Amino acid sequence: MEVQSKFVTLKNQIEGAPQESNFEIKETSLKQISNDEAQLIVKNLYVSIDPYQLNRMKSLSSTHSATKYANQVKLGQAIDAHGVGRVVVCGDERFKEGDLVVGHFGWEEYTLINTTTADGFFRKIESSEFPPSYYLGILGIKIDNWVRIALEGISGLTAYAGFFNVCKPKKGDFVFVSAASGSVGNIVGQYAKLFGCYVVGSAGSNDKVDLLKNKLGFDDAFNYKEETDFDSALKRFFPHGIDIYFDNVGGELLEAAIANMNMFGRIAVCGVISEYTNKRRSAPNMLDVIYKRITIQGFLLVDYLHLFQEFMSFTCDQLRNDKIQAIEDISMGLESIPSAFVGLFNGSNVGKKLVQLE
Amino acid sequence: MEVQSKFVTLKNQIEGAPQESNFEIKETSLKQISNDEAQLIVKNLYVSIDPYQLNRMKSLSSTHSATKYANQVKLGQAIDAHGVGRVVVCGDERFKEGDLVVGHFGWEEYTLINTTTADGFFRKIESSEFPPSYYLGILGIKIDNWVRIALEGISGLTAYAGFFNVCKPKKGDFVFVSAASGSVGNIVGQYAKLFGCYVVGSAGSNDKVDLLKNKLGFDDAFNYKEETDFDSALKRFFPHGIDIYFDNVGGELLEAAIANMNMFGRIAVCGVISEYTNKRRSAPNMLDVIYKRITIQGFLLVDYLHLFQEFMSFTCDQLRNDKIQAIEDISMGLESIPSAFVGLFNGSNVGKKLVQLE
Repeated sequence: MEVQSKFVTLKNQIEGAPQESNFEIKETSLKQISNDEAQLIVKNLYVSIDPYQLNRMKSLSSTHSATKYANQVKLGQAIDAHGVGRVVVCGDERFKEGDLVVGHFGWEEYTLINTTTADGFFRKIESSEFPPSYYLGILGIKIDNWVRIALEGISGLTAYAGFFNVCKPKKGDFVFVSAASGSVGNIVGQYAKLFGCYVVGSAGSNDKVDLLKNKLGFDDAFNYKEETDFDSALKRFFPHGIDIYFDNVGGELLEAAIANMNMFGRIAVCGVISEYTNKRRSAPNMLDVIYKRITIQGFLLVDYLHLFQEFMSFTCDQLRNDKIQAIEDISMGLESIPSAFVGLFNGSNVGKKLVQLE
Repeated sequence: MEVQSKFVTLKNQIEGAPQESNFEIKETSLKQISNDEAQLIVKNLYVSIDPYQLNRMKSLSSTHSATKYANQVKLGQAIDAHGVGRVVVCGDERFKEGDLVVGHFGWEEYTLINTTTADGFFRKIESSEFPPSYYLGILGIKIDNWVRIALEGISGLTAYAGFFNVCKPKKGDFVFVSAASGSVGNIVGQYAKLFGCYVVGSAGSNDKVDLLKNKLGFDDAFNYKEETDFDSALKRFFPHGIDIYFDNVGGELLEAAIANMNMFGRIAVCGVISEYTNKRRSAPNMLDVIYKRITIQGFLLVDYLHLFQEFMSFTCDQLRNDKIQAIEDISMGLESIPSAFVGLFNGSNVGKKLVQLE
């Protein structure tokens, strides 16, 4: 069987912020070669749109390129991305047509998978308790052997590992989360509240601030675009200082957070989105780092996969009891992928950004 | 009894690099008021000259000021500093005239101590096995209750705690030490070699490089003033990358170190001397910090005082067996204190900078 599949591709390597014109849509045909090859064709239902992908679309020489650590996106080819799909052509007896699978697929209508080589890069979703899209966000994800692939877009376990294992919270800690309405930030803030911390988030619009305070239970939140001086803003929201900073943005906000940290403060560096499109790097006051004995720790999910069962059990329970909310921002149709991606860097998304393909 | 005592004082708060003209020498008379007051007068033999003192000589508003954490040096008054001295007037039965004491005294000929309030800020040196000056450097120091006082100038235990407890070394680790001929750096490098690491140091002259390689046993060393590109320099000296960076300088070298760190690299931030006199702060690539899971940790000795016995026992053994060298740089006479201090920021000193007063 052969299917026609449209896919999003990169026209040129990106410098600075991405533009829709950096992308184009192409079409190809996918064909299952033989049953011996143990191939599947998956029709993608949802694909994930994540900031980390930008760093692989840059030239190798870019100082904000991640391509020295992972594969660079190739011009004209399909762009790999996490997705949830349905098996439509099945050449592997462990699956059957109609199975829901989550894995590392692509910004494309259909993905052809050689299950012998891709073993472990995807798995079947057995339960129908939660919407399939949750497996790209709040319930994402563990798939064995993803070490070689992108694990950065996996919101739920990233938030869990980053908050509980890197930040090492204590009840009553004052916690600051930047990009707090983003895919990881909103979950970190909700975990921190459940754990008994005081949580303030920053976001880029008044609607997002409203969401954080009124729907997600943050103690407070502010619109960073309305603040002229981040240092004063943090002093206002944290009169007793910050114990934990979960950093998704880098830049000036990291400097201001360090200036407002308490003794033995902990900073988990999860992302630096403000620096991905901008050359202005954070230049923190290292004298503060010394005198306040601050620890700044970069982390990647791949080192915390052993937490998967504990994460799933805890998070599913909270979802069942309505103690935690899944915040998703879903656009429709393959054609909307470039604008959805560009929007990440304008702060257009609220929560996990997905594109629904069917 | 009354003594005339000359002391060094600050004429104005310092901006940028210190100048000898920032200081002047004054004289006062010290008098033991009564035996009831339990006072001592100590004649200082050696006083310690340390970079951290600059940060207390700045205005409160300086971004490189430490005065928000500790006492600011007051204009016209004696400048406190670690010292070794001899008791010349004794109003406390726990001491006697002629006793050698080490403690937090000052850049002055004599220090008057109220032993009831200063209890624990100094102690008697009981052993004569090592030169008294060692207690300001390689064997410095634990004195109870120094929490409220400057502990930053205490080289030996700082190097020990910073290397073994903050850097968490493994045998075979590749270790980079900046300001490696400085008071702390030279000891860190020697500990790292004893522990079985590969150690490269940076320093500011060819004589210092020679000292590191030929006297202190560093595997390699380089003169940073002869390098135009720190990133390339570190690539040359660490073709397999850096596992541990013991940072005494901050600035550009910290950026280059982060660019050359290995996965799970650890950075102990002990000092940022390049930034004390310069507004150019380090702006590390946080994407490297994330992807390489680097930990950057500021530390102060005060949190590691429990290591004192283990540190002393280990270090005295190494000194006895000639496995570690005490590197001291001693100027003569109170009048040389301002130039000795200014010289710290020009890189004039080799090892622990002291001024001998008698």
